[in-house]
Amino acid sequence: MGICCQAQAQLPMPWMKKKKKKNEALRSSEHPVVQSIRAIPIRVLTVGKKRSKGIQLVVDEYKEKINYYCSMEDVLIRSNPKNTSNVKAQIEAEDISVIKQLRPDDWVLVLDEHGADITSEQLASLIEDAAITGSSRLSFCIGGPYGHGSQVRSRANLTIRLSSMVLNHQIALIVLLEQIYRAWTILKGQKYHH
Amino acid sequence: MGICCQAQAQLPMPWMKKKKKKNEALRSSEHPVVQSIRAIPIRVLTVGKKRSKGIQLVVDEYKEKINYYCSMEDVLIRSNPKNTSNVKAQIEAEDISVIKQLRPDDWVLVLDEHGADITSEQLASLIEDAAITGSSRLSFCIGGPYGHGSQVRSRANLTIRLSSMVLNHQIALIVLLEQIYRAWTILKGQKYHH
Repeated sequence: MGICCQAQAQLPMPWMKKKKKKNEALRSSEHPVVQSIRAIPIRVLTVGKKRSKGIQLVVDEYKEKINYYCSMEDVLIRSNPKNTSNVKAQIEAEDISVIKQLRPDDWVLVLDEHGADITSEQLASLIEDAAITGSSRLSFCIGGPYGHGSQVRSRANLTIRLSSMVLNHQIALIVLLEQIYRAWTILKGQKYHH
Repeated sequence: MGICCQAQAQLPMPWMKKKKKKNEALRSSEHPVVQSIRAIPIRVLTVGKKRSKGIQLVVDEYKEKINYYCSMEDVLIRSNPKNTSNVKAQIEAEDISVIKQLRPDDWVLVLDEHGADITSEQLASLIEDAAITGSSRLSFCIGGPYGHGSQVRSRANLTIRLSSMVLNHQIALIVLLEQIYRAWTILKGQKYHH
């Protein structure tokens, strides 16, 4: 189905400014065939509880598809590790758990309600840009039920959102994985397999 | 996770004008407890191929959750019923198949790339509004790989989109079902169960 592709980013996207000339073509609707993009390893960190069987099967399905293009690691970080009833303490504990998973040379993309709306083409450009920077990994961070803490927010190289609606972390993960797979088909100039 | 809830609709939403006074409260961040909403039957029509096992499990999971609030029917319409290689003919054939599934008194909500961005709260108001109109059913239409035909577009009472990114029909279905479930928890003033 075709749910959108004309939205404009609502927040500044610093990576666009850096390589404006290079990326102009990538953001046009006629995406050129690009064969030589470094297969930067991708890591998706999700804060949440154990997944349902169906969600895990869909995650595995997209992981296999993405692994055709690059290594993709799916990391589930336990929600509320200190088992507290205090929301602030929960957010802080989850924040620390996520930060521990990040390396200094990771390129970090955070999913957050205050993030920018981007198109599938822009996500493709973003993956390419992360590969060009020389970062060792591209890490996506999906927060828990109360969102991210201040450390993760500060660490973000870019913050985006997947929808104008609130998505739970399991659904957000599936949408993100499908978008990563779609991004690679765009970058490689290949047909998208439904 | 909290991916958004502050986006404003980018296209006019006629249903908002009709009952502005009534719906003002519903669209505030402090959604009141509404107990007496008619459980309008919901039907989700998806044009596509056979689903993967994981997708079907997730669909069944949300169907069960939604059935707690209203009857929810999941209708898979065969993509490209005439098995043509002509894209225009495929769209037209799918268009006819979808239209055949709609009754004159259905309240029809079409998902389309040119639709409005809405928040989860707005979807909740929309379900309530459809129930108030006296329509016998609320039908959501998710198009095939090339989107909807002209008849379905014309039949829509409202057209929305789920994301600024292009989603395939399986992922769109899952996002929509999660949003319908979330909408009911909002309308009933209940805690969302992750």
